[in-house]
Amino acid sequence: MTDQMRRITLARRPQGMPVPQDFALDTAPLPNPAEGEVLVAVEWLSLDPYMRGRMDDVRSYAPSVGLGEVMTGQGTGRVLASRAPGFAAGDQVTGITGWASHAVLPAPGLRKLDAGLPPSTALGVLGMPGFTAWTGLREYGRPKAGETLVVGAATGPVGSLVGQLARAAGLRTVAVAGGPEKCRLATETFGFDAAIDHRAHDDASSLRKALAQAAPDGVDIYWENVGGKTLEAVLPLMNTHGRIPVCGTIAWYGGADGAQDRLPMAWRAILVKRLHVHGFIIFDHWQHFPEFLADMAPKVAAGEIAFLEDVADGLENAPEAFIGLLQGRNRGKQLVRV
Amino acid sequence: MTDQMRRITLARRPQGMPVPQDFALDTAPLPNPAEGEVLVAVEWLSLDPYMRGRMDDVRSYAPSVGLGEVMTGQGTGRVLASRAPGFAAGDQVTGITGWASHAVLPAPGLRKLDAGLPPSTALGVLGMPGFTAWTGLREYGRPKAGETLVVGAATGPVGSLVGQLARAAGLRTVAVAGGPEKCRLATETFGFDAAIDHRAHDDASSLRKALAQAAPDGVDIYWENVGGKTLEAVLPLMNTHGRIPVCGTIAWYGGADGAQDRLPMAWRAILVKRLHVHGFIIFDHWQHFPEFLADMAPKVAAGEIAFLEDVADGLENAPEAFIGLLQGRNRGKQLVRV
Repeated sequence: MTDQMRRITLARRPQGMPVPQDFALDTAPLPNPAEGEVLVAVEWLSLDPYMRGRMDDVRSYAPSVGLGEVMTGQGTGRVLASRAPGFAAGDQVTGITGWASHAVLPAPGLRKLDAGLPPSTALGVLGMPGFTAWTGLREYGRPKAGETLVVGAATGPVGSLVGQLARAAGLRTVAVAGGPEKCRLATETFGFDAAIDHRAHDDASSLRKALAQAAPDGVDIYWENVGGKTLEAVLPLMNTHGRIPVCGTIAWYGGADGAQDRLPMAWRAILVKRLHVHGFIIFDHWQHFPEFLADMAPKVAAGEIAFLEDVADGLENAPEAFIGLLQGRNRGKQLVRV
Repeated sequence: MTDQMRRITLARRPQGMPVPQDFALDTAPLPNPAEGEVLVAVEWLSLDPYMRGRMDDVRSYAPSVGLGEVMTGQGTGRVLASRAPGFAAGDQVTGITGWASHAVLPAPGLRKLDAGLPPSTALGVLGMPGFTAWTGLREYGRPKAGETLVVGAATGPVGSLVGQLARAAGLRTVAVAGGPEKCRLATETFGFDAAIDHRAHDDASSLRKALAQAAPDGVDIYWENVGGKTLEAVLPLMNTHGRIPVCGTIAWYGGADGAQDRLPMAWRAILVKRLHVHGFIIFDHWQHFPEFLADMAPKVAAGEIAFLEDVADGLENAPEAFIGLLQGRNRGKQLVRV
């Protein structure tokens, strides 16, 4: 058994797309597990898009990797030595090993793997990406049979499961993927009803035409993995009351498309802050109007609610008052005394 | 009693901000109510920002006003003649009268007003704008005591009620309004804890600094009435799990800020289509992981779920594989066999 471990560290912070020189490979003495810890020989390491964010020195939903520190990541491996109850040498486990050949981890951060399944599945279809697809579709996608779902990065571990789960729920599923091979995989391996090659479309407008053909009844769920051109193409195709689980914006991870475009900033804020953005039109809610009136009319009558009215006199002055309203010239509710 | 009515019609479709020449004032013979209809003398007409959208010839959540047609809108008035049971001459009613001195309306589209309140309140605080504030805050804002709410157009009929309802629910409320007089109204009349004059800030970054001071614990609910600079200023201040009810984007009603900026298009789609956009991070949902595994592991074991793995051999090849992942070179789940 070696007494050295190999590790990949963050050598410098990338500018846009990472390059090999942003990483360094080094060796370090193999650490010994303390009480309650386990030494693991890493066999499989997961690479995931979220790691790009950890390489930046900006506040996100998780701490950055420090310069010179081992890149973060989940792995699987065999236990070499255990000082924790419940784990023994030879056990197959998964945990946040980092990009390294070995890791010493506290027992609560480890999970033993089902011996009946390949360990690598714990990093993909039965791991964080699979769980992401399952949770986001159930919680935020809320699929209904007969609806249409579009997903970008459709052959990736999240997108491919989103598509299969949605299809099993009775939805028409449309994949967006890069290149003919991935499009073939999307339909043949993952069972998507249609697949669009975004590389065959130079701009969002052309991609939108292809998507509109593949989704003739519009789009009820757009699963957002990518942002960029695909988002721009899909948005005008969304049906009323559509849902957009925002899971990633990989098209923008290497930097935004231009300082004039505020969409990447907004979409990144929605993702990182887990925001819930709800468009709504009051006419959809009219059945609750009597409840509103029963609650508020007594308060208004009692003078407990302040309100302001701006009055324009005469129907002929309605256009000027309306223009003033759009320009913010009114202070309160704009009325016309006809 | 006159036998003529005055009406304001749409003379032409506006380019950006409407101008007086886009409207025309004409007269028409007073119509007679048919069976089931009521003739109303309009006394109050409501002007609302949504009307700008009806002037365009584009598909939105409601039909456009046709050229030469009476501008749409809600009014209140007195019944002059009724051929519908339940309505009598002299009743105060509200309905979609349009911009006109008189209207003949079917009885189901009319509501009798509470004689104890000024009729004009049926168009503002106790009408569509008030109902919008009440519904959107309850349904999509989901305020919790101790949180912070920011609202634009804060002295308008929607914003001013949003602020009062949120404050009554125990939130810190921050108004954004245009000019010192509206800011004074926001705090003195409507009880906002703070008010920011967006006109005193040339850009989003300056406005953001003022907002950050007024909302020292960040923003939990941003009530979106305006879009534009205010949205750009608020987004980075949002707290995790924040909510954004999108009710209007009046800053963009006169046209977007530039073709390079896709945010107005996206925000308008969210509003018009009533989309639900949910950012989410799977680490918040970990308590459901066992449920996921119980559901999916048997399906994976049975071969019912397809998955693809892309394997890079050797830890030293992790950086190249990661760069490839960000560039979309992988097909399925990217793994490293360490």
